[in-house]
Amino acid sequence: MQPSSLTHPLDRATTLARNEDGSMTGQTDAAYANMVGPFGGITAAVIMKALLVHPERLGEPVSLTINYAAPIADGEYRIHAVPVRTNRSTQHWSITLSQGKELTTTATAVFALRRDTWTTTEILAPDVPAAVAVPSSRLANTDRAWFDNYEMRFVRGHLLDQSKPEDERDSVTVLWVRDNPPRPLDLVSLTSICDSFAPRIIVRRPKWVPFGTVSITIYFQAGNAQLEAQGDRPVLGIARASHFGRGYHDQTAEVWSDSGTLLATSHQVVYFKE
Amino acid sequence: MQPSSLTHPLDRATTLARNEDGSMTGQTDAAYANMVGPFGGITAAVIMKALLVHPERLGEPVSLTINYAAPIADGEYRIHAVPVRTNRSTQHWSITLSQGKELTTTATAVFALRRDTWTTTEILAPDVPAAVAVPSSRLANTDRAWFDNYEMRFVRGHLLDQSKPEDERDSVTVLWVRDNPPRPLDLVSLTSICDSFAPRIIVRRPKWVPFGTVSITIYFQAGNAQLEAQGDRPVLGIARASHFGRGYHDQTAEVWSDSGTLLATSHQVVYFKE
Repeated sequence: MQPSSLTHPLDRATTLARNEDGSMTGQTDAAYANMVGPFGGITAAVIMKALLVHPERLGEPVSLTINYAAPIADGEYRIHAVPVRTNRSTQHWSITLSQGKELTTTATAVFALRRDTWTTTEILAPDVPAAVAVPSSRLANTDRAWFDNYEMRFVRGHLLDQSKPEDERDSVTVLWVRDNPPRPLDLVSLTSICDSFAPRIIVRRPKWVPFGTVSITIYFQAGNAQLEAQGDRPVLGIARASHFGRGYHDQTAEVWSDSGTLLATSHQVVYFKE
Repeated sequence: MQPSSLTHPLDRATTLARNEDGSMTGQTDAAYANMVGPFGGITAAVIMKALLVHPERLGEPVSLTINYAAPIADGEYRIHAVPVRTNRSTQHWSITLSQGKELTTTATAVFALRRDTWTTTEILAPDVPAAVAVPSSRLANTDRAWFDNYEMRFVRGHLLDQSKPEDERDSVTVLWVRDNPPRPLDLVSLTSICDSFAPRIIVRRPKWVPFGTVSITIYFQAGNAQLEAQGDRPVLGIARASHFGRGYHDQTAEVWSDSGTLLATSHQVVYFKE
């Protein structure tokens, strides 16, 4: 199926064709280009898509880890997703993304049949103005086309904000974010949004330096019903780092629905220069 | 090399023999038995050991993700660790642990040549009494032998503590922890300690139910020099969950040296019943 001009850019960029050996072929999309290769979030999203459409899939995602081993070149790539162990209610996946003989990305995922159980959310969503009350920002940067695919409304912690003195800076960003143009939230778009918060180094130390996520892990905290209830309205994101040093920093993010449901949490480790 | 009676239990349980095909063989150790199969931390530790002793290893760990796909039976197991992509300063690993034809565990890791850079720690270590001022607890539980291999001094958030009313309970544990008997901290023991905090479900809702970690990711924040400086004194651990629901909960942990250096952070997702 060819994507049409009516197709949302996210769906176009995550279109996959199944090969006879069970692998899937996709291609990079200029709309999600980053400085070098595609935006990591779109790579994570297309891997999630490959699992969701896989004929052997059991249930829904619990966790997804993506390791960005090398840049993906413009053009075609192939995803091999293998259900390496399927139990009664859980399923473990090993995934690779490659171009010719070049392995660019490895991933693992846990899927499960999930049932309602005792439930509580122990952390609180930050108290913020509604999305409509927060202006939308554009970070003009032609080297990073993917920014244009997100509408970002920063409540605090703008990228590259040098207005605060050094001793008042931290790595925390709170923002409303959604696809641009708006698109109903699903597991594919949520996966990409989990990697959309930009490396914390350019919030805490607001200048451009070479950086890149090397590994991200996403935990899926909500089900399809809660994602569908969100529709195409902005979700609330919070991202922060705990430690920067020896060339790497971690960062943690929470994604909340606009009615205060925790949708996903993510954790990543980012390379940065000097 | 046969472990002697002078060998620390952690070193005995992580002893590996290299096979001709480059894989490594280890065996489960009764001292680290859990309810079903070995304690997850010792499995994570032996995978870290397999990477550290691998002749093709580049640098030191940045991140390690372990997926517990199935219980490991008592006896021998085989670890295949493959450096799937080695760049100038980073190296990506794919690892499996199997028994015969049964795949029990998958893992990925990122190693890197790490250099000193700009550094800051944005989170604070909790303000707690020194380890010597906190009594050591024993959680008598013969189904979980591994508890005996850790000296745990709980500052708050005991496991299974029913003394607080429901509305005052949370999932937070703060404790001093070290190997029992004491052993100088290294990357192998730190990896195991990162999974030693017990599923948060039995802190937040203090009763035994079936549970088990399905995936854990560890970020290594400190280098060998900082680990060596810690020696065999207790490290400070903090663990908490953000959300419980639909059969799973996440949990995050920090491990601090006793001089206030952040050594590692870890994130995991845990299955629990009802």
